[in-house]
Amino acid sequence: MKDAPAPTRPDTGTPDGLIVPTYEDMLGAHMRIAPHIRRTPVRTSDYLNELTGAQLFFKCENFQEPGAFKVRGAANAVFGLDEAQAPKGVATHSSGNHASCLSYAAMRRGIPCNVVMPHSAPQAKKDTVRRYGGRITECAPSTSAREETFARVAAETGGNFVHSYNDPRVIAGQGTCAREVMEQTDGLDMMVAPIGGGGMVSGTCLTLSTLAPEVQIIAAEPEQADDAYRSFKAGRIIADDAPRTIADGLLVPLKALTWHFVSRHVHDILTASEDEIVDAMKLTWKHLRIVIEPSCAVPLAIILKNPGRFAGKRVGVIITGGNVDLDALPWIKGE
Amino acid sequence: MKDAPAPTRPDTGTPDGLIVPTYEDMLGAHMRIAPHIRRTPVRTSDYLNELTGAQLFFKCENFQEPGAFKVRGAANAVFGLDEAQAPKGVATHSSGNHASCLSYAAMRRGIPCNVVMPHSAPQAKKDTVRRYGGRITECAPSTSAREETFARVAAETGGNFVHSYNDPRVIAGQGTCAREVMEQTDGLDMMVAPIGGGGMVSGTCLTLSTLAPEVQIIAAEPEQADDAYRSFKAGRIIADDAPRTIADGLLVPLKALTWHFVSRHVHDILTASEDEIVDAMKLTWKHLRIVIEPSCAVPLAIILKNPGRFAGKRVGVIITGGNVDLDALPWIKGE
Repeated sequence: MKDAPAPTRPDTGTPDGLIVPTYEDMLGAHMRIAPHIRRTPVRTSDYLNELTGAQLFFKCENFQEPGAFKVRGAANAVFGLDEAQAPKGVATHSSGNHASCLSYAAMRRGIPCNVVMPHSAPQAKKDTVRRYGGRITECAPSTSAREETFARVAAETGGNFVHSYNDPRVIAGQGTCAREVMEQTDGLDMMVAPIGGGGMVSGTCLTLSTLAPEVQIIAAEPEQADDAYRSFKAGRIIADDAPRTIADGLLVPLKALTWHFVSRHVHDILTASEDEIVDAMKLTWKHLRIVIEPSCAVPLAIILKNPGRFAGKRVGVIITGGNVDLDALPWIKGE
Repeated sequence: MKDAPAPTRPDTGTPDGLIVPTYEDMLGAHMRIAPHIRRTPVRTSDYLNELTGAQLFFKCENFQEPGAFKVRGAANAVFGLDEAQAPKGVATHSSGNHASCLSYAAMRRGIPCNVVMPHSAPQAKKDTVRRYGGRITECAPSTSAREETFARVAAETGGNFVHSYNDPRVIAGQGTCAREVMEQTDGLDMMVAPIGGGGMVSGTCLTLSTLAPEVQIIAAEPEQADDAYRSFKAGRIIADDAPRTIADGLLVPLKALTWHFVSRHVHDILTASEDEIVDAMKLTWKHLRIVIEPSCAVPLAIILKNPGRFAGKRVGVIITGGNVDLDALPWIKGE
């Protein structure tokens, strides 16, 4: 739970290096989680195709029951626990979709899920975790408080730690999404996903590097939280201190395992401004008529911003989640 | 274009009675329009099922390219025109989804679409019609001005009049939606659709009365525009003078042809208040993560209001459209 180490000093707990999930791990994950997730639809819009000159295929992970792709990795971790560990359940620290998705998966298996969350987290996020049976332990909103609290909760409960992205089980689970997209479309030139910690992008790399290595993987990042972009250019993990962006799912830095995939398989990282993200979000609501989080709008924002890169191409776009505060939409200004 | 006549005095222009579309007309419509519409998905939500005690199957007609089920009836009329009529195109008066859907269908066939619309209609509606190549003639916002203007436009262009619901071609087209729902689900106890003029409900009656007569058809209507409810109870068409509801797709009265179906095949009509409609709309956005119009929320509102009627049942719910002003959402109060 320290800041991202250099890639040569992995933090996955294995003394001799990273545990890198394989394509077979992804296939196993897909069989394991299939009864617990939705095979979400891929949607298209003639209007957005005209606007971009590309053929866009939107994979609607916002339609997962808990509203985000993270249920894939969470379910893979939860349903992969052996019978000895299962009664002690899982534990994590997160104030976002990972917390609710892990709680949801644990609820489906009937095992405990302990979540450490800053007391400043939005009430709606806490409500969702509790609705899925997650037990929240609140802490002060600082890294040290979170680490201390989490260590105590983990020791007391024996819950298996499931990191929101720096975990091979989670990345193998997220990789099932790209596999479905390839089955649901008739070949792609590119796949675009938003990048925060890099869990979805790493899963996409894991799957496509074997299944469809001809597909360019493009990561999309907010300009105001462009640590992955700068890491990619520098060739090593750079973590921001306190990025500020409306795309609140993309605030976390790369870690050893996601850097492993991003540095090897990502073709490029492109960035978009806050206004561009909000415009793309509203366009998606209006023309695809789906509710998406700001984070999911970053791919469309970079496609609109770089028409020369995408025109004439068949492009998969991963809509990562749809949990948004409907009372505070970014294009509606308060007084 | 007069107010709805009594059902014994049909206004479809046939001297000896109504031209009532048949089940075979619906099957023909489905073949005709299949290349021009989307076979929209049926979605479910564990959360909404728990909340209602029912099993709800939401047919997402908001995912049609122009955002509403009305593209079915419009496409059936447009692509059913013979070669002599086609060059003169179609004409209608509408300030809602029918205008944009008819324009969209005409654009796909490459024929003209003339639309008479009050100059007070929202700019966004005008923009959408024009984006699809529709030609707008504006008129004063009164029935007489609309009738005069439409008569002139129709005479000048020779465009074939396609009424938004009181037209057998339109009803046959709308009926294709219920057919898809029955193919996409494993049997239903009930089908719920919102009712305004009754086009979707009539199409549903047309299809289910032959295909699945065991399915109860329930119409859902705003309390503040409950003319269909009062007509149903009175056994004759009652038209409101100026209903006021947030469900702006449901302001129009039944007419002879839709009354034909509603009076024979609808099991019941239930109503919901404005607050109940807004709550159901927000619930749908939040848990299905789709953008729907207020009109489409009336079915969920009546299901939530009458749990005893729906608990334990398998219920199809037709989400009729998703064209909504994202800058003016009903649960966000302006100052």
